[in-house]
Amino acid sequence: MILTVTLNTALDLTYGVPELVPHASHRVSEMSERPGGKGLNVARVLSVLGHRTVVTGFAGGATGAVLRELLADLSPQEPTDPGGTDAPEPGAAPAATAPAPVTDALVTVAGNTRRTIAVVDRATGDTTQLNEPGPLVTADEWAALLGRYEELLAGADAVALCGSLPPGIHVGAYAELVRSARTAGVPVLLDTSGEPLRRGIAARPDLIKPNADELAQLTGSREPMRATRDARRRGAHGVIASLGPDGMLAVTPDGIWQAAPPARVPGNPTGAGDSAVAGLLSGLVEGLSWPDRLRRAVALSTATVLSPTAGDFDRAAYEELLPRVGIEEHAPAAR
Amino acid sequence: MILTVTLNTALDLTYGVPELVPHASHRVSEMSERPGGKGLNVARVLSVLGHRTVVTGFAGGATGAVLRELLADLSPQEPTDPGGTDAPEPGAAPAATAPAPVTDALVTVAGNTRRTIAVVDRATGDTTQLNEPGPLVTADEWAALLGRYEELLAGADAVALCGSLPPGIHVGAYAELVRSARTAGVPVLLDTSGEPLRRGIAARPDLIKPNADELAQLTGSREPMRATRDARRRGAHGVIASLGPDGMLAVTPDGIWQAAPPARVPGNPTGAGDSAVAGLLSGLVEGLSWPDRLRRAVALSTATVLSPTAGDFDRAAYEELLPRVGIEEHAPAAR
Repeated sequence: MILTVTLNTALDLTYGVPELVPHASHRVSEMSERPGGKGLNVARVLSVLGHRTVVTGFAGGATGAVLRELLADLSPQEPTDPGGTDAPEPGAAPAATAPAPVTDALVTVAGNTRRTIAVVDRATGDTTQLNEPGPLVTADEWAALLGRYEELLAGADAVALCGSLPPGIHVGAYAELVRSARTAGVPVLLDTSGEPLRRGIAARPDLIKPNADELAQLTGSREPMRATRDARRRGAHGVIASLGPDGMLAVTPDGIWQAAPPARVPGNPTGAGDSAVAGLLSGLVEGLSWPDRLRRAVALSTATVLSPTAGDFDRAAYEELLPRVGIEEHAPAAR
Repeated sequence: MILTVTLNTALDLTYGVPELVPHASHRVSEMSERPGGKGLNVARVLSVLGHRTVVTGFAGGATGAVLRELLADLSPQEPTDPGGTDAPEPGAAPAATAPAPVTDALVTVAGNTRRTIAVVDRATGDTTQLNEPGPLVTADEWAALLGRYEELLAGADAVALCGSLPPGIHVGAYAELVRSARTAGVPVLLDTSGEPLRRGIAARPDLIKPNADELAQLTGSREPMRATRDARRRGAHGVIASLGPDGMLAVTPDGIWQAAPPARVPGNPTGAGDSAVAGLLSGLVEGLSWPDRLRRAVALSTATVLSPTAGDFDRAAYEELLPRVGIEEHAPAAR
């Protein structure tokens, strides 16, 4: 099972409007509601890839209750393969299996889970984002999360720590969760930004997956190779920098690779990074080589940009893209 | 008791942002949540004025449940004056009594109550509005509302029919509700727009309270006196046209008056029209003269514009404004 942690889960609302005009009134013509926060997005993609996933983090209040109902709807009522579908054929594109279950192990908090609102201009697809701050989490609730996390680590093949921190959670929270995972011997991927990323890296996670902005904020450099190497020196064993339409740069203990999609694609990049995390983690658990993991991550994230629904991926596009992702190995430079 | 009907209730969210920029991402710095829809706003003001109010209409789903919780919070747990405070001293500004109870008589529907989102630019106070369409109401749910409405009319001194229609409700719905009120002998105020207003007027409500845009849409004229007279000819016994900062023009069977605030005031006009409805209805129930009803409506709506919280009114400002509202009586023109 793969564990994902989302400390600041969200009920994601998408509103379609003809065009967002500041200081005007808009009738929302189309609306959708789904469980969100980066780790929940990662779990949804892992489920489609056939990997059993457990999600933890915080949920509370009326919005938290709606989030959990929608999360329950993601899972098949009766798993079609109770033996587990953890390990599809290594290297192959996962077959079109039924989605694997996503298990809700969220910790209930007194505060209200936040909403995020994506207002999509129908003509252009351009999106305006409004994010509530999230509930104030108490010390007792954080202690309950730590207990739940330790229990879940015992059964986890890998763990992803994802997204922003809600109010009340100390900035070193991810560092604490990274250390527990390393103590438990569970590979840990950290996907956050700012000071929580800086502190988390110092606890030596197996992988981080920053984008160009997050890397620049961390290292002060916008030169991908320099910034990625700097991030490794700060403590991350492997750094997978996502470079948007240019693909990914992976600097790992085993080598350095650049992976690029066959072409630039039009679409909405929302959730592309979360799909990449799902690709990297599923590849790790399946024992794929770095080039195969990167192929999967790039194909998944490109297929997410192409999908008409933000954050979902287009399965046919994914399978078509997978063999066409270009991989280039770099000679390791002197450290 | 005063009855207000809100067929398309809403959970009103207000988000504070530094400035709304299309296609950018925004952290919401301040957030509030309250029960909304015009009839609920009217009830909140009536409650502060000391009038017992019953609200009906539709509510459903998770958002409906939150709306009803917030509505319950409006009412004192133990009414301080169980004998009722229906009739403050006629003509006087209501004394600073404890708020009167607002009773929830909403009909539960299967669909989700809509949300409305007001995004307020912190620097300027300018507001961008996003309104969900509302739940699809079934024929059975509409029949349940009609039954509830008939029962409530039996105990009502006046009724206000407020706001837009949710999907599934026929465009003649307000006309039907106006006819029932007239049959029951309960004075009825209709505050809606477009085709539901046009149909509703033909059923001969006691009062309508259109703004300049709604009047122009109804009559084709932007000249207030001409448009207001035309609206009367279409069936409304009295027409109170709200002319924004210019106050109100009342064309009634008893005469024609213009009422104006002492000065233009800066602020947010959200909810000013609902406060005016509360002023008109409370004045009617208290047996005030037309000039006193109009003074109250104009003072309440001006005090609502002045309030720092959208839709609330500033009580001190209201009491200070009340004696300073200018009233001018027009000679009735030949019909």
